[in-house]
Amino acid sequence: MDQPIGVIDSGVGGLTVASELMRQLPKERLIYLGDTLRCPYGPRPKEEVIQYTLEMVNFLLKQDIKLLVIACNTATAFTLELLQEQLDIPVIGVIQPGARAAIKMTKNMQIGVIGTEGTIRSRAYPDALHGINSEIEVQGLSCPDFVPMVEQGVITGPEAYQVVETALQSIKEKQIIDTLILGCTHYPLLKDTIQAVMGEDVHIISSGEETAREVSVILGYHQTLYEGDRSPKHRFYTTGPWEIFERIAIQWLDIPINIIENANIETN
Amino acid sequence: MDQPIGVIDSGVGGLTVASELMRQLPKERLIYLGDTLRCPYGPRPKEEVIQYTLEMVNFLLKQDIKLLVIACNTATAFTLELLQEQLDIPVIGVIQPGARAAIKMTKNMQIGVIGTEGTIRSRAYPDALHGINSEIEVQGLSCPDFVPMVEQGVITGPEAYQVVETALQSIKEKQIIDTLILGCTHYPLLKDTIQAVMGEDVHIISSGEETAREVSVILGYHQTLYEGDRSPKHRFYTTGPWEIFERIAIQWLDIPINIIENANIETN
Repeated sequence: MDQPIGVIDSGVGGLTVASELMRQLPKERLIYLGDTLRCPYGPRPKEEVIQYTLEMVNFLLKQDIKLLVIACNTATAFTLELLQEQLDIPVIGVIQPGARAAIKMTKNMQIGVIGTEGTIRSRAYPDALHGINSEIEVQGLSCPDFVPMVEQGVITGPEAYQVVETALQSIKEKQIIDTLILGCTHYPLLKDTIQAVMGEDVHIISSGEETAREVSVILGYHQTLYEGDRSPKHRFYTTGPWEIFERIAIQWLDIPINIIENANIETN
Repeated sequence: MDQPIGVIDSGVGGLTVASELMRQLPKERLIYLGDTLRCPYGPRPKEEVIQYTLEMVNFLLKQDIKLLVIACNTATAFTLELLQEQLDIPVIGVIQPGARAAIKMTKNMQIGVIGTEGTIRSRAYPDALHGINSEIEVQGLSCPDFVPMVEQGVITGPEAYQVVETALQSIKEKQIIDTLILGCTHYPLLKDTIQAVMGEDVHIISSGEETAREVSVILGYHQTLYEGDRSPKHRFYTTGPWEIFERIAIQWLDIPINIIENANIETN
């Protein structure tokens, strides 16, 4: 099926999901919309996140998408069920794929989750994990320093290591969890550093990888994968600044971006 | 949703899938049917495999299952599309989950597949892999000695190691693949031995783990997971001998089986 996959995010974090979609589904065409004008969504009230997300969804629906990925933890927590009910196309968030992958990987049923304060406070990951298995023990930890650091381009090296080590100290010193969910779409850019800090025995679950896998499952299930051969041209829209967007995409994720278009989603 | 998940297999191999379903979805109730009277399906003509599989499916449909797992590579290759078209419930096979997981894991796009002669000859895995990404290179290898060895209870130790090492020599000495799909539901019982032979740098993909993960995705997507708390009672049926079945289940997979019931599926 020739229609594109739509990806929405509050800004640049969802590019880690887009990057994995391109890797795991190289024939599929993406339309990405990052609401860089109004990011971050984390500190905003629920009603505002819902309104902004619906505006983004409407913009993409006009481009005839076959599946919608909500590549943002905050937006997933507040709008996934609503959108699954209202839209005729499949809608996939980033929380459930990470939770299911963690359940597959853990041997001792001790799972850690790191994310923004909003995501940890929402208890979306413990709820998703306990919905499947009530015996899993979850340690949640917010890491407010990670997003600004990633957006400044500090991703590897001693400074990144020290910030990550300090942030994860409480979860690391307990030596209980065997699986750690990166519950923020910015964090996969820090995956190597987080793995180095936590040690090789802890499985790191990246929501981007797992969400792309589940998009593949759902498109396969509905028989709506693109069946021919092609190197698709993706489109990227932002509602505001695109400088960080371009740097993350090109420097860190090796995503080929020629043009970033401006989306005026409020008046669209 | 209280209805059980149905699992069919030509015999005992599907128990590795059942075991993973119990681990990853501990609230879900299973009904397993193994056609031990007529196994293995691998050497049988396509029409016969389709007929036998449809007989098993009819037996389980009368027990009001909410989702069907075809936990057998041969039956998946011959009947998945047919059953997905004909049944009103979701139908999941074991080939696509292994293929999608391998695509997620591989970095160098060199994937190995081991299975019975029938599965390798069917090219079901290369077809599934290339359907998603035509640039992946696939090395297939049949390992006819593995199933009889597992059914005799030889799973670890020097004898198992030697048989596995000899069988995998051609694929190992090339040192090309970074991901190996266990394309037979018996093989996860040899996973530790296969990992030891291939070395820690090769990712081993077990179809049982990946199929259970995709069952979780599809039940979550359809909102048909069991929502309460329970320790469900599973039911196991065989069409013939149950001795190997019981030994694999209890000794090797730690599946609690009290009663194995006899299923007369032809006259059912």
